[in-house]
Amino acid sequence: MTAPLAHRNRVALLRAELKRRRLTGFFVPRADEFQGEYVAACAERLNWLTNFRGSAGLAILTLTKAAIFVDGRYVVQVRQQVDEKLFRPLHIVENPPATWIAMNLKQGDRLGFDPWLVTADQAARFSEACAAVGATFVPVASNPIDAIWHDQPARPMAAFATQPTQLAGRSAADKIKDIRKSLGGADAVVLTQPDSVSWLLNLRGFDVPHTPVAAAYAILPAKGKLMLFADRARLPEDVAAHLKKIAAVRPPGEIAAALKALGRKKCKVLIDGSWTPERIRAVLARAGARIVTAADPVSLPKARKNPVEREGARNAQRRDGVAMSRFLCWFEAEAPKGRLTELDVAGKLKDFRAASGEFRDLSFETIPASGPHAAIPHYHATPESSRKLGRNEIFLIDSGGQYPDGTTDITRTLIVGEPTAEMKDRFTRVLKGMIGLSVIRFPKGTTGSQLDVLARRALWMAGLDFDHGTGHGVGSYLSVHEGPARINKSDRTALEPGMILSNEPGYYKPGHYGIRIENLVMVHDARDITGGERPMLGFETLTLAPIDRRLIEAPLLSPEERGWLNDYHARVLKEIGGFLNGNELDWLRKACAAL
Amino acid sequence: MTAPLAHRNRVALLRAELKRRRLTGFFVPRADEFQGEYVAACAERLNWLTNFRGSAGLAILTLTKAAIFVDGRYVVQVRQQVDEKLFRPLHIVENPPATWIAMNLKQGDRLGFDPWLVTADQAARFSEACAAVGATFVPVASNPIDAIWHDQPARPMAAFATQPTQLAGRSAADKIKDIRKSLGGADAVVLTQPDSVSWLLNLRGFDVPHTPVAAAYAILPAKGKLMLFADRARLPEDVAAHLKKIAAVRPPGEIAAALKALGRKKCKVLIDGSWTPERIRAVLARAGARIVTAADPVSLPKARKNPVEREGARNAQRRDGVAMSRFLCWFEAEAPKGRLTELDVAGKLKDFRAASGEFRDLSFETIPASGPHAAIPHYHATPESSRKLGRNEIFLIDSGGQYPDGTTDITRTLIVGEPTAEMKDRFTRVLKGMIGLSVIRFPKGTTGSQLDVLARRALWMAGLDFDHGTGHGVGSYLSVHEGPARINKSDRTALEPGMILSNEPGYYKPGHYGIRIENLVMVHDARDITGGERPMLGFETLTLAPIDRRLIEAPLLSPEERGWLNDYHARVLKEIGGFLNGNELDWLRKACAAL
Repeated sequence: MTAPLAHRNRVALLRAELKRRRLTGFFVPRADEFQGEYVAACAERLNWLTNFRGSAGLAILTLTKAAIFVDGRYVVQVRQQVDEKLFRPLHIVENPPATWIAMNLKQGDRLGFDPWLVTADQAARFSEACAAVGATFVPVASNPIDAIWHDQPARPMAAFATQPTQLAGRSAADKIKDIRKSLGGADAVVLTQPDSVSWLLNLRGFDVPHTPVAAAYAILPAKGKLMLFADRARLPEDVAAHLKKIAAVRPPGEIAAALKALGRKKCKVLIDGSWTPERIRAVLARAGARIVTAADPVSLPKARKNPVEREGARNAQRRDGVAMSRFLCWFEAEAPKGRLTELDVAGKLKDFRAASGEFRDLSFETIPASGPHAAIPHYHATPESSRKLGRNEIFLIDSGGQYPDGTTDITRTLIVGEPTAEMKDRFTRVLKGMIGLSVIRFPKGTTGSQLDVLARRALWMAGLDFDHGTGHGVGSYLSVHEGPARINKSDRTALEPGMILSNEPGYYKPGHYGIRIENLVMVHDARDITGGERPMLGFETLTLAPIDRRLIEAPLLSPEERGWLNDYHARVLKEIGGFLNGNELDWLRKACAAL
Repeated sequence: MTAPLAHRNRVALLRAELKRRRLTGFFVPRADEFQGEYVAACAERLNWLTNFRGSAGLAILTLTKAAIFVDGRYVVQVRQQVDEKLFRPLHIVENPPATWIAMNLKQGDRLGFDPWLVTADQAARFSEACAAVGATFVPVASNPIDAIWHDQPARPMAAFATQPTQLAGRSAADKIKDIRKSLGGADAVVLTQPDSVSWLLNLRGFDVPHTPVAAAYAILPAKGKLMLFADRARLPEDVAAHLKKIAAVRPPGEIAAALKALGRKKCKVLIDGSWTPERIRAVLARAGARIVTAADPVSLPKARKNPVEREGARNAQRRDGVAMSRFLCWFEAEAPKGRLTELDVAGKLKDFRAASGEFRDLSFETIPASGPHAAIPHYHATPESSRKLGRNEIFLIDSGGQYPDGTTDITRTLIVGEPTAEMKDRFTRVLKGMIGLSVIRFPKGTTGSQLDVLARRALWMAGLDFDHGTGHGVGSYLSVHEGPARINKSDRTALEPGMILSNEPGYYKPGHYGIRIENLVMVHDARDITGGERPMLGFETLTLAPIDRRLIEAPLLSPEERGWLNDYHARVLKEIGGFLNGNELDWLRKACAAL
């Protein structure tokens, strides 16, 4: 917990501001108006108010009380960063905000919220929670935190860039034509997710780290030109020329007028309530639009990579695999010397990626977790936490790159020195899960929740499990965490050819060590089945980097599993070997030798 | 298609009756007022009107048109039984009734329905479908089919029986106490599923074949006595004495008055919309009750068998396993002689079950499917269809018994003569699936849809699949198909200790042969994991009868799978062998020999 005075003052200032506005409380989400994983510095309102630095959470503050709600990943961190005298830290699932509202708000209370930062679905939920105790959930015209945050950074205004058709695989005009066909009778759709807008218009942007999306809303009418709400100052000449053919560009402030125009014409307007700001829903509703709530129609087409994006993914993965292989060779030589810290290692891996020539950014902040830190699935290394890699310790490194033709995400778990028998047992069970998912074939319509057990089976049989999903969708030079399909215990989105997902089972022993093995896989038609009666789908493994053989307890693998591993390593050597020389190539040969 | 004249006359009579009542159509479900799988002869209205004899379906008839809707199981059968000039046969999923309504009804049309035979959820759905075209879905005060069906059989009035506490494991009074605690603030719950009422009150009944439920509604108030709506004539002295302590018995006709009384007191009344007759919902709503729609609160406690029911299931299964083993021994000797028909075999198996002394009924009509008939998962053998068992053909027999301590359900697939290599491959893949599910351990909260893949994996890998669920719940001397948990591609009910489910993957080659292997399993705490960190659940296999080793392609089994099979057969021999003698015991020893 740092700088308690500053945050106490900020809380006091905010309460004074709320009184001035006749509010009895305020709702502070971590999200900005795009509901993404990363927010610009100017939008770090939750952090400014509370000092909490996690990537998800929300605070509710009344004139006398306040609480901050975080998920399981952040229950420890929140207590380290936030003054518990100011904000009571609560687990968002075990003590949900709606329950807190029921217990702490009363008749006549007015809980304010910024309707640009809260989705339509959230607003409905919290309005109901407030109404149940006679309070109201009140949208504010301007954010009271912005009013008191005197040194709030400026909004980022990074220039947009185009994603060339030879990388996107389909022109923006053609994509727009496709999406129009899927509007199901609606007169327009409001697109508020930057990755949807970026994919649809073949645009990219650089306001936030790691996720190269153009942060802008768009309205796509069934007939007439798409409207993009973006500051003209962000559009270099080539981007403006690209957009000219496909969109009418308007200043961001004009979206309300455009929504009202749809309402006046009684248009049927499609919005995705789980992503769209409540403000947009409210303006539409008040203006008389007929609102249809449905999944963002761009979401699925974006997830189903086209042939060019698929080939781009393979190329990006090969490049990333070369960097990873060179890194692993370096690591094996350097780590045992006992001088490396976690941040040293993360920096070195970034250097190897940067050497590829096509590297644009990390796809998320590298997780370089040594020893007990590896037991924290979302470990965040800071100069304070960065520890020296110890002998006979696990080192887990989860990282990825943004390349113009694809986004990567890979985890490898390594041993420095000698593993224990338990480490080998656990590593091998995690590997069996990773292989179980890699090889499966499945009929059309199968969902991630149906396949998830394959990644957990070997752990379950030993009374073990891991507490995160097995896989998330991955974008194409877009977000490394992309919907709608996931592989976990509950996801019900059918897997379709071209979807890229991570395959990353793990095992965590708190205070001791952790294991995760992650490859990206792509759904494809499994055409290699002889004598089959029904078309089947399967996964093509995209990631190309050795898996640490020193951690494998070979007798635990079935002949099929061992066969998969040997085939995989042979493929890594074949695809990556040509880019390496000398001791790096020698090392790769050894790392990829048959088991 | 038989007796076309009779059905043409009946349709004409019904249309005249509808005109008289100023209706323009009528909705004819197969269900009776209890929504069960079996209905009494007097309630076979759909069959009487259309000649369709399947166990699920519905017809809609207007003054000029009519259609009958059936699921995938019955698309062939419906064309054989129903005059297509009278009723257009439609696939209920591909051409759903709501679509037919949209296309065939018009403004002002009045489609009648019997609100005792249609659930609240169905009524809401079809009311909406009618309203969309300006028509109305009209509840009728009396069923027009009953008005024209002059030789309609009388309602069955079989005497109820008690299920003794030493078999039920818990007194009705205690069960009522438990269910009261789960009403979540409701003032009363209306129970309309006979298996819920029967389980709760430790009652059984015999109105319909195979399912020994007492057909009666009940109202359980949060305070005060449970009301059971049943004719006193059905209650022998011991049953009346048993009920006296726990329930107020009222004539069935008085339920409306009781519902109205709840309404007048503005009671919060819980109903399960997917099972409760629309009539009950409507009476409650009209009388002013506050209706809460939720899952029948008896459903889960009934599914979680208590220790006495668990032990009962094991005993019933041992008894059933003796009958099955004797039958299999007989079959192996007799079938190759080439004289047996399907119905002969089914009859013989029933004889072996009857010889157990505790046998009460089959738990469903035996499916004795030879050769190509085995490719029809729900094959129904009639004197016309019953074919002679052929040489080198598959014979599939799916059957079960009702015993006072438990309900059984088992499928074995046998070969008469020599199987082809393909048959062995398919049989072994189905077996691998059955074993995959048998051995799995899984954490609390896991659902059937997460585990289903384990039963299909070996088929999927070869481009094969089967089009039915992998498992259904099974009652305790109640229905052989019992909710809420299932194992299939979509079920989301958490599996809990004590639930009994079938484990029955299959493979079907239409026109040629079919394979299904079915054991019942019971969810239990998996206490046998050394070194595990988390509590796990698993399955105890209940069914005890040999699996035909001649159909196994042994090299396809993993060492673990082969180990499971040998252990299983050793257990069958140990538990069943003591009840057999002479050549039957010799046969069992051979059938259970290690592979």
